[in-house]
Amino acid sequence: MTPRQRFLAAVHQEPVDRPPIWLMRQAGRYLPEYRELKTKHDFLTMVRTPELAAEVTLQPLKRFPLDAAIIFSDILVIPEALGQGYHFRDQGGIGMDYLLDSAEKIEALDPTKMAEKLKYVGDALSLTRSKLGEDTALLGFCGSPWTLACYMVEGGSAKDFTAIKQLALVQPELFEALMQKLTDAIVDYLHMQIDAGADALQIFDSWGAICPATHYEAFSLRWIHHIIAELKNRVPVILYAKGMGHKAPDLMNTGAKVISLDWTMNLRRMRDSIGRGAAVQGNLDPVVLTTTPEVTRREAQHVLDEAGSRPGYIFNLGHGMIPSAKIECVEALMETVTGQTNAG
Amino acid sequence: MTPRQRFLAAVHQEPVDRPPIWLMRQAGRYLPEYRELKTKHDFLTMVRTPELAAEVTLQPLKRFPLDAAIIFSDILVIPEALGQGYHFRDQGGIGMDYLLDSAEKIEALDPTKMAEKLKYVGDALSLTRSKLGEDTALLGFCGSPWTLACYMVEGGSAKDFTAIKQLALVQPELFEALMQKLTDAIVDYLHMQIDAGADALQIFDSWGAICPATHYEAFSLRWIHHIIAELKNRVPVILYAKGMGHKAPDLMNTGAKVISLDWTMNLRRMRDSIGRGAAVQGNLDPVVLTTTPEVTRREAQHVLDEAGSRPGYIFNLGHGMIPSAKIECVEALMETVTGQTNAG
Repeated sequence: MTPRQRFLAAVHQEPVDRPPIWLMRQAGRYLPEYRELKTKHDFLTMVRTPELAAEVTLQPLKRFPLDAAIIFSDILVIPEALGQGYHFRDQGGIGMDYLLDSAEKIEALDPTKMAEKLKYVGDALSLTRSKLGEDTALLGFCGSPWTLACYMVEGGSAKDFTAIKQLALVQPELFEALMQKLTDAIVDYLHMQIDAGADALQIFDSWGAICPATHYEAFSLRWIHHIIAELKNRVPVILYAKGMGHKAPDLMNTGAKVISLDWTMNLRRMRDSIGRGAAVQGNLDPVVLTTTPEVTRREAQHVLDEAGSRPGYIFNLGHGMIPSAKIECVEALMETVTGQTNAG
Repeated sequence: MTPRQRFLAAVHQEPVDRPPIWLMRQAGRYLPEYRELKTKHDFLTMVRTPELAAEVTLQPLKRFPLDAAIIFSDILVIPEALGQGYHFRDQGGIGMDYLLDSAEKIEALDPTKMAEKLKYVGDALSLTRSKLGEDTALLGFCGSPWTLACYMVEGGSAKDFTAIKQLALVQPELFEALMQKLTDAIVDYLHMQIDAGADALQIFDSWGAICPATHYEAFSLRWIHHIIAELKNRVPVILYAKGMGHKAPDLMNTGAKVISLDWTMNLRRMRDSIGRGAAVQGNLDPVVLTTTPEVTRREAQHVLDEAGSRPGYIFNLGHGMIPSAKIECVEALMETVTGQTNAG
């Protein structure tokens, strides 16, 4: 069974020799070779340069026997392609180049020619595929319309993202106009990612839990549902809704084939309640990888035990890898899940 | 039915004429009279001066027909009384005066004489009761051991609180020594609050969702369980575990009489699944109070509809009031819930 076969079998809840594994943000600052490259190129340059993006994407695969690569990119390439650029603030976090605070500014966003504007992501995927070969799964991704709108309307990173909720509650037509543009842009973008070789796509609703439960369908999930429907089953979609895993029945109604859980969910209970409705991915706390190999082995084994032996489970973290993760902990994790001791 | 009777009846799931209402952080920066007082005294001075704390506690009661007052204080008075002081950082957030990063420092924390060291909170409660009269409920509160330990071990506010999880996973004996001290201190502190006139107590596990689901019992809930057991049913306890409302059965096992829900939970489903096991409090999104009176009325009515007519529901927000909440929205909320148009 190749890693790609293993990954896709788990997605489709078919038997596997062992659970496939990949790690959210597996390419990134915890890797010395990434930090080395980062001294020469800034983050956005790496995202926008296919050769660099492909190189970063493949870095963790050279170290660890991962079953899938996920393209090195950023969810905010969509707002930028729509006309609202962004940068990193000196004090940390994201700053959008302007605040999306009027009907005129929303009207001015241009959701056309996404495949053209974001061709660099397609090129990065194609280049990665050519270097990766056919035996390993390759994933694309995007942010959900709701999560992107959180940044766009707030003007950048925030603790609470109050502005998006004020817009959605007070000016529903304007909110819907924004969501429709984001949805259209994302559909084109994801089709391009599939054309460029993505085996599956993950949609990140990273700020799902900002949304009140009773509005979650209207404010976020219906747009994700629409996106997945427009992909017409070309590839399976994984949905990660941080802090909203307890709404699994609603998440499954979007058409997602895999529900990716954060660490606050009990994996065994979730697998029992989800049943055959979707495969499940997650939910090791990323902080475990900052502790010791011994603790990592124990915690990873616990997640495997909770996942059980029924087909349809993909090992992953409950959130992205954190920069202080230790290489020896990632190695211990890989050994526990794969039984292998290195990437060779 | 007095407000106090109404509040306590709802806690005990007995019939009420209408749902009682109070609002987390109802005394605070959204009130002009609080901001006025804050120009003369800093936050910690107000917390430590019974006359000022009582005045701030009563400010929202003079404006709105709330059924309960909650003492103006801070969860971090416990670490401070244990010997680890704190301050507000210039860039925002909490800074502990030193980092709790060794066995020696944990050993040095002194959990004795809590009632004496925190007498100012008892005095503030007594003074508030004398001014409030007997007809309105008066609440005390504390942070959970887990939530306090998040700040203490991290050294202040943080996005992710990785340090507490590293301690709990890698040095479980040391973690438990810390939790035991916090638990002992909190038990004494809460008994003192009851002696001083508190009708009920709310425990804030504000950082519950930092904890992996499979460790939540061991890392947080067992200590809350122990605290509630030690209070020997003198007064009912409300448990607020932000981001962990989906673990309601586990929360109820602590002995809490009321489960306070954030906005990510579907209130109707939660009331159905909790049944007679506990009363429920919450879960209006605080951002609603930054919109318009019209939106506030609509959203508040929706929460009331979701709560249903079965006894055992207390109206509240899903998290604390935010500083940009508008007075006219709070008024619209009070009218919707109480049918009254002012505090008179």
